[in-house]
Amino acid sequence: MIVETQFTLIPSLTLDVGETLKDVTVAYQTYGTLNADRMNAILIEHAFTGDAHAAGIDHEGKPGWWANMIGPGKAFDTDRYFVICSNVLGGCRGTTGPSSINPATGQPYGLKFPGITISDMVRLQKALIDALGIPKLLAVAGGSMGGMQVLEWAVAYPEAVEACLPIATTARHSAQQIAFNETGRQAIMADPDFHAGDYYYKTPPARGLSVARMVGHITYMSDESMREKFGRRLRDKKSFGYDFEVDFEVESYLRYRGSQFVGRFDANSYLYITKAMDYFDLSAGFPSLAASLERARSRFLVISFTSDWLYPSYQSQEMVNALRGRNHDVTYCELSSNYGHDAFLVDIGEQTEIVRGFLARCVREFRPLEVLR
Amino acid sequence: MIVETQFTLIPSLTLDVGETLKDVTVAYQTYGTLNADRMNAILIEHAFTGDAHAAGIDHEGKPGWWANMIGPGKAFDTDRYFVICSNVLGGCRGTTGPSSINPATGQPYGLKFPGITISDMVRLQKALIDALGIPKLLAVAGGSMGGMQVLEWAVAYPEAVEACLPIATTARHSAQQIAFNETGRQAIMADPDFHAGDYYYKTPPARGLSVARMVGHITYMSDESMREKFGRRLRDKKSFGYDFEVDFEVESYLRYRGSQFVGRFDANSYLYITKAMDYFDLSAGFPSLAASLERARSRFLVISFTSDWLYPSYQSQEMVNALRGRNHDVTYCELSSNYGHDAFLVDIGEQTEIVRGFLARCVREFRPLEVLR
Repeated sequence: MIVETQFTLIPSLTLDVGETLKDVTVAYQTYGTLNADRMNAILIEHAFTGDAHAAGIDHEGKPGWWANMIGPGKAFDTDRYFVICSNVLGGCRGTTGPSSINPATGQPYGLKFPGITISDMVRLQKALIDALGIPKLLAVAGGSMGGMQVLEWAVAYPEAVEACLPIATTARHSAQQIAFNETGRQAIMADPDFHAGDYYYKTPPARGLSVARMVGHITYMSDESMREKFGRRLRDKKSFGYDFEVDFEVESYLRYRGSQFVGRFDANSYLYITKAMDYFDLSAGFPSLAASLERARSRFLVISFTSDWLYPSYQSQEMVNALRGRNHDVTYCELSSNYGHDAFLVDIGEQTEIVRGFLARCVREFRPLEVLR
Repeated sequence: MIVETQFTLIPSLTLDVGETLKDVTVAYQTYGTLNADRMNAILIEHAFTGDAHAAGIDHEGKPGWWANMIGPGKAFDTDRYFVICSNVLGGCRGTTGPSSINPATGQPYGLKFPGITISDMVRLQKALIDALGIPKLLAVAGGSMGGMQVLEWAVAYPEAVEACLPIATTARHSAQQIAFNETGRQAIMADPDFHAGDYYYKTPPARGLSVARMVGHITYMSDESMREKFGRRLRDKKSFGYDFEVDFEVESYLRYRGSQFVGRFDANSYLYITKAMDYFDLSAGFPSLAASLERARSRFLVISFTSDWLYPSYQSQEMVNALRGRNHDVTYCELSSNYGHDAFLVDIGEQTEIVRGFLARCVREFRPLEVLR
């Protein structure tokens, strides 16, 4: 099934920084069919460098980033559910972001794009859901930065979400998580081709962006999955080169993933989105994380993975404790996996069973918006 | 006590790659006094970016990198032991390396410096120890890359070392460890000021080197120590800047440490030394790690730290198992610490007690070279 990316225009979006963006484009895809009662819609939230193409295959034959989780008979069963995924605000895959044309200048925004937050991303998604005529989502689900958006939905639009599935995520970045993001930003901004973000129609800061991506890839895998995948195997040679060319398979892999990333991602989006993640703190302005979740009305399924050291299980457990502290309906599963942070994308056996069962219950116990009011 | 760096000239050093370096300068410092029986000498091995200044204070009042472990009454008690530390081959702190003048051209070597290995570093140290007239060392000790050199001493010069103290180290880099090093190398080589290593007397690749160092610093700390030191505290501001300047303390710290590093370390040394670490594999050419340790004649004290995720305890335990498999005299301590890989440098309470006790036994049971022969 070839899916098309669709676009809608949101006339006005006021951001946390106070600025208002006009005519914001949202790129999104949908899979499955919206029921007449409009109670089977699930919003999927993508991670940092993901996009709206979550399932099916595109015109180039490329499967969506969560195609193993979304489709007929899969965890997010498109025979039963109407699944939506949109590219985030600030992205570079169809939704308005720093590479979009600034109507005030006729040039790409670059660093003139306003600062954005996870909350802004979710506000735009709510406008999309409203435009699609969906009063209440059956579920909002996503991993990593997707999970942050899930949490934001739970507190920003509590009555509009039956169930929240934050996966491999956190309610706020730790110093270490900020540190890794900052390293990527510095790598980009250190590239002389960066030109303070004004590199469109010129040479992009490819070397800096590539280094940033290399750091990212290390954090997405685990020590063990890297050992299994690469070990100390040499790449196309029998002995060391002593010349700073590729010796080891793992070097070749990282260089390849780094250079490949440059073709599909915008360096300014990298800066804006990582800052949005670092700024995100669900508990900001509240005496505690539990207090910030006071407003939530959803059921929760929280999932983490044993070998995920970038978003370690203790961060999910903090959320779970906070939710339980406010007597929310919460199920928590720490799944065993060697795949590190990538587990939510690739190690989907148990995850599929758990999500499927949880969603079935949410369908049975769905509380329409009118009931809540 | 102000210590002076001393220099000695080794006329010729043949490297693993087959080349021979002439007139190799070795920078070293010594602390304490060599006994008449010459049986109280301890060689300290520095880590990646360390140098010969391990103890005491220099002319600028700067203490040595292990001054808390080496000195009168300390773990390496200079009232009892004659302690030596030399800058490694390939370094940039006095010992011959890529920033040294290539006698063939009258210019700095740059990338014309031959590829080096941990084994080459140790071969040069053996020449220094011979030049100092020490037939057998009481101990060789070091953390991180220092520990690799300790292991290399154990198998390269088994009769010349009474005791080996490899700390927070590994017998071979994992894919993840290689990956972090490769990211640093790519950051340096991506800097347009790198000019294929030929940047001396010009602008050094400061931005790339700084990014490389930022990645390094994250790996030296633990998630927990970063949380304790920085948390999500903002730096000199009350709210987010949305301008890609420093928001968080941890960003400020990393930028500072990155930029500071540029003033004291040479980018080419970064490349050569990280490659030497990645190439190091004590078991190379042997059927097993245990087999490679067959030749060793030393006693071993192996130390690792619970929160060290860069050189995790399982790597020390592999060594310990291999040593026990060959019936070596080995003591292993996994010390509890929140400081991550930095623990061997900063969390020295228990480490001091253990090292002190171990060294005292090694003195009592010292087997002079003649006895072994």
